[in-house]
Amino acid sequence: MLWPVISLVVSIIGIGVAVYYYKWVQALPVAEGNLNQIGSLIRKGAFTFLKREYRILRTFLGVVAIIILIIFPSPIWQGSVSDNVIAAVAYVFGAIFSGLAGYVGISIATLANVRCATAARKGLVPAYTVAFRAGAVMGMAVVSAALAGAALIHIITGDADMLMAFSLGASSLALFAKAGGGIFTKSADIAADLTGKVELGIPEDDPRNPAVIADNVGDNVGDVAGMGADLFDSQIAAFAAALVIAAPLGEIDIIFCFGALGLLASIFGVLLARVKDNGSPGKALNSGTILTCVIFAVLSLIASLVFKFNIRIWGATFLGMLVGVIIGFTSDFFTGDDKKPVAKVAEACQSGPAFTILTGFSYGLLSILPSMIGIGAAAMGSYMLLLPLGGNYPMFGIAIAAIGMLSIVGMIISNDAFGPIVDNARGLAEMGNLGDEVLDITDKLDAAGNTAKAITKGFAIGAAGLTVIALLAAFQEIVFSATGVRISFDVMDPLIFFGMLVGASVPAVFSAMLIMGVSRNSEVMVKEIHRQFDTIDGLKEGKDGVLPEYEKCIDIATVGAIKELIPAGLTAIIITLVVGFIGGTMAMGGFLAGNIVSGLCFAMLMSNAGGLWDNAKKYIEDGNFGGKGSDAHKAAVIGDTVGDPFKDTAGPSINTQITVVSLVASVTATLFAAFSIFG
Amino acid sequence: MLWPVISLVVSIIGIGVAVYYYKWVQALPVAEGNLNQIGSLIRKGAFTFLKREYRILRTFLGVVAIIILIIFPSPIWQGSVSDNVIAAVAYVFGAIFSGLAGYVGISIATLANVRCATAARKGLVPAYTVAFRAGAVMGMAVVSAALAGAALIHIITGDADMLMAFSLGASSLALFAKAGGGIFTKSADIAADLTGKVELGIPEDDPRNPAVIADNVGDNVGDVAGMGADLFDSQIAAFAAALVIAAPLGEIDIIFCFGALGLLASIFGVLLARVKDNGSPGKALNSGTILTCVIFAVLSLIASLVFKFNIRIWGATFLGMLVGVIIGFTSDFFTGDDKKPVAKVAEACQSGPAFTILTGFSYGLLSILPSMIGIGAAAMGSYMLLLPLGGNYPMFGIAIAAIGMLSIVGMIISNDAFGPIVDNARGLAEMGNLGDEVLDITDKLDAAGNTAKAITKGFAIGAAGLTVIALLAAFQEIVFSATGVRISFDVMDPLIFFGMLVGASVPAVFSAMLIMGVSRNSEVMVKEIHRQFDTIDGLKEGKDGVLPEYEKCIDIATVGAIKELIPAGLTAIIITLVVGFIGGTMAMGGFLAGNIVSGLCFAMLMSNAGGLWDNAKKYIEDGNFGGKGSDAHKAAVIGDTVGDPFKDTAGPSINTQITVVSLVASVTATLFAAFSIFG
Repeated sequence: MLWPVISLVVSIIGIGVAVYYYKWVQALPVAEGNLNQIGSLIRKGAFTFLKREYRILRTFLGVVAIIILIIFPSPIWQGSVSDNVIAAVAYVFGAIFSGLAGYVGISIATLANVRCATAARKGLVPAYTVAFRAGAVMGMAVVSAALAGAALIHIITGDADMLMAFSLGASSLALFAKAGGGIFTKSADIAADLTGKVELGIPEDDPRNPAVIADNVGDNVGDVAGMGADLFDSQIAAFAAALVIAAPLGEIDIIFCFGALGLLASIFGVLLARVKDNGSPGKALNSGTILTCVIFAVLSLIASLVFKFNIRIWGATFLGMLVGVIIGFTSDFFTGDDKKPVAKVAEACQSGPAFTILTGFSYGLLSILPSMIGIGAAAMGSYMLLLPLGGNYPMFGIAIAAIGMLSIVGMIISNDAFGPIVDNARGLAEMGNLGDEVLDITDKLDAAGNTAKAITKGFAIGAAGLTVIALLAAFQEIVFSATGVRISFDVMDPLIFFGMLVGASVPAVFSAMLIMGVSRNSEVMVKEIHRQFDTIDGLKEGKDGVLPEYEKCIDIATVGAIKELIPAGLTAIIITLVVGFIGGTMAMGGFLAGNIVSGLCFAMLMSNAGGLWDNAKKYIEDGNFGGKGSDAHKAAVIGDTVGDPFKDTAGPSINTQITVVSLVASVTATLFAAFSIFG
Repeated sequence: MLWPVISLVVSIIGIGVAVYYYKWVQALPVAEGNLNQIGSLIRKGAFTFLKREYRILRTFLGVVAIIILIIFPSPIWQGSVSDNVIAAVAYVFGAIFSGLAGYVGISIATLANVRCATAARKGLVPAYTVAFRAGAVMGMAVVSAALAGAALIHIITGDADMLMAFSLGASSLALFAKAGGGIFTKSADIAADLTGKVELGIPEDDPRNPAVIADNVGDNVGDVAGMGADLFDSQIAAFAAALVIAAPLGEIDIIFCFGALGLLASIFGVLLARVKDNGSPGKALNSGTILTCVIFAVLSLIASLVFKFNIRIWGATFLGMLVGVIIGFTSDFFTGDDKKPVAKVAEACQSGPAFTILTGFSYGLLSILPSMIGIGAAAMGSYMLLLPLGGNYPMFGIAIAAIGMLSIVGMIISNDAFGPIVDNARGLAEMGNLGDEVLDITDKLDAAGNTAKAITKGFAIGAAGLTVIALLAAFQEIVFSATGVRISFDVMDPLIFFGMLVGASVPAVFSAMLIMGVSRNSEVMVKEIHRQFDTIDGLKEGKDGVLPEYEKCIDIATVGAIKELIPAGLTAIIITLVVGFIGGTMAMGGFLAGNIVSGLCFAMLMSNAGGLWDNAKKYIEDGNFGGKGSDAHKAAVIGDTVGDPFKDTAGPSINTQITVVSLVASVTATLFAAFSIFG
């Protein structure tokens, strides 16, 4: 129990850092003028959405909790009732923790956006510091909550199954939070761009545009709350998978040790990272990531030597971390605005929108290979490293590599939350008329945020990849403990092959439903914006004192997202259950494998192609190939619009879809084993 | 030996039918005017490309033949030299047969296009009959060649491995023929559309457009020659896989019996199918397909009863055929112009190109699920059906289901070749000024060709899916006979998982390279077209007697396609070898599984999304949502351009890529078993 308790202590330190930075940000001044007023609108809009979203999800979570109560860890008519009660409670707490992480994120981000814009008047460094520390609040809060949750459940129940239930709670909330937030943010973004930039030719954050506040709200509910829930979920899932596999091996300690050291490394990283007066904020973010990696590697090596953990386990952890960084930088190559792909796509924009789409899509396809090799090599390497230890150790190697990859997640979240905060600050600087100098600074920060985002996204997908492989092993372990049979998933078995083909289709169907949701929703919003331009006198012309009805657009985004967020996730879950009840645990093994493989492909394709189009547009806006207003720019805007739901709705939601499906399979494994038609 | 000999006889009958129809078409009159001249240009262009393509491939095939001579069926330093010589010869013959199929196809198609246009002056039925019988020449020639090749090799060598080599020859030619033809046709098509339809607003086949002949050449080299090579390859691969699995079971007879009956059914189908005077040509094509299915089902059932084949084997064959038809009609749902998806995409065109792309892409994603369920269910069902027979029979079930799915391929090819012939006829009718009435008839035939094409494409992908599952089993069998170990491909094995992740990336990389090839090539052609419009006096205005330099565009398409066709295919093969030599036969098993799963996903996504965009454009051109020239139409043209390389270059080439990679793995299996680093 030593290491779980130490983990709890480190979590409390992490929460302390979060509270300290929260108060620090909160105490900062806000510029006079209408900044406060616009900021409040954004904050109110974000919280309204969150409340309505959580209200809808309450019902869903309640139903699932009851199902868990009946069937997990074993059907209520077979096992102990109290275990099932604990599992159901753990599930609910998983969801609550995840929801809280989103809540905290929104809360700090919507305080920080106005303060960051204000601080930008004093220069780049103060503005950077506000955004980075606010991001760190989110990073520390999420990772501390995850570590504390895992530690608490372990201390109280000592049963890895309960952490599975906790994890399922976290990821079912994350699934819908990502989908809902992603639909909200992209509906608003697309509608604002099409009516503002394309039709009227007004700037991105012009206050005349009725969708402009909704767009800024979207950054918060999509990128901050959604992303927080996502990475919280990945971390918990990695812990759960590792614990399920580690429990029979008696290797619980090292998981909590490395978890605690990862958080500690992120705390140091956050405290030490800063940008120099004339330095680049993008480099500052990246050097913070590298620093955190080095600290974690050193700390975990020392711990392994001092506490005599097997050094091979450390090796697997290190390998996982290393590959995570490599995958991150691969994403950076494919989406970075100083690299060849962005320049090539921007060049293709000159030949029209069709070539823009084809070129970006092709690079997106190419970006799949290096990441897949990375994930595959990490899995294989960590397995082989632990092979000499025998038993189920090799599988444990994959699980601990996932923990290693996620060790620096505190830093990753801090960097990632930086993005939407400075994006909001940029909008506020424009809407609040803070002047060109301030806009210039927030633009620089925004670009840095985009680069960081590309790296963290690649990282998140890589981490999810390793985690779900570990979850597959955990599934096998759970089936083994339920049935006494250690099933192998031979792809030549037709049940497994059947499962694999169907499982591979699920990320496609899931993505399609989300993308269609965004399309539908933004079309409704475009109509509303046209209505306002047509009926509100003086709005188009920017007459003094004439304001659009911002709330209407926020309301459309909210209602639409709420309506669309349930079906896609539910479809994925229902297909999983149907396959399980038809083909049993064998088909389910294939299903999960197919789901992982195609899910990773589509996630990488969409995230990278989307990021690429976005940055190609920015590259042209920087004056290349004709600059703003040119035909190339128009083509680039179309590419960017296609990329929006790719990179911010469907792409990053696939991680969560894979995790949820893997956990659902684990939780219902005993049922599939007992009641399937062919299995 | 009875059934192989009967197969040979039926093949000769098939070839007889092909020759008869060839002569029949050849004897038809060609309209006076410049039709003959334009037709000759097309014919010459197509043959020039084919010759240059085959010349390049000669070197490649020679190198591979030498490699086979050294390593297959067993390394020359271990096994019998004469076996290796036979295998190398079989490989070369496979390539030659496949090349001949393409040659025959081009030859008849470029005779039929002018004669179909001429016949259209007499009405729909005569024109339909010309195109259909010309298509049947191709269908009969391809299937007869495949059946005869398989039978001959079996009669001469009695060794299923030799058919593997033959099959690899056929599919390596098909891989490059599809890629090369696909790049040729879409470069020309896109360049012609962008400069003609979009920039100048002139009709599709306006003779002023310098790319118009190249576009028509492309239909022949891409759709006729490429598709013929593809389906020839699928059929041979299905035979090879089935024979490898069937040999130890002593079930050779039934394979040849069903193969012969399939060809016979297609012959009857072709002879009996006709369109009524006021009937719809689309319905005539479909009813021909259904008729062929019924004939095959009845004949094969009778044969099973008379010759006392196990009725379960017939069941598996029937199941395969049934699922093929279902998958075909699924494709029809997603791309048919009287179905909801086309109408929805056309509607989305009103909101601009971004929504066009997003909606079409989403439907493409959705279309993956039903086909995957179909393929999975066919594999599972045929496996289960033969489970009571024990041994390796269940795997044989999957292989024979693939044979069943491909039984009606003669009819499928006939329908598919119909498309490019009437497409060409439409162009010729316009260029040759045959009048609006003739254009009207060829338009109707063109639409019917599109519908048939969607069904046959879905069908081809489904057949390839089942075939490659059977090839995976054949790979296992070959490794078994080489090493004595029957490997199982457990996805929890990290070597297999590693292979799976890398294998899943290959179709993505392969597609990306092809799409980029099309983009590059058509950009070059667009520049040439602009040059001609700028420098040739009176061309734009359509001054009498002023003609563009058609040959220049044909030359660009040819040179570009030749340059681009090798790298993509070679990359896929090299990655396969690298994975094999790193991870051995285990990694290779995973690699093939991953390759199949993601390959099917991407193939279906791209084929169906592409077809959908094409038909949405036609739907608008028919006067919906503003009709030709409207903003919705402009958006639809962009969607169609994106869809062009999706549906006619990358999408349908993926089948072949999967087959080639599977065969390469089988041929090199003994090397991987002996020399891999980790395996």
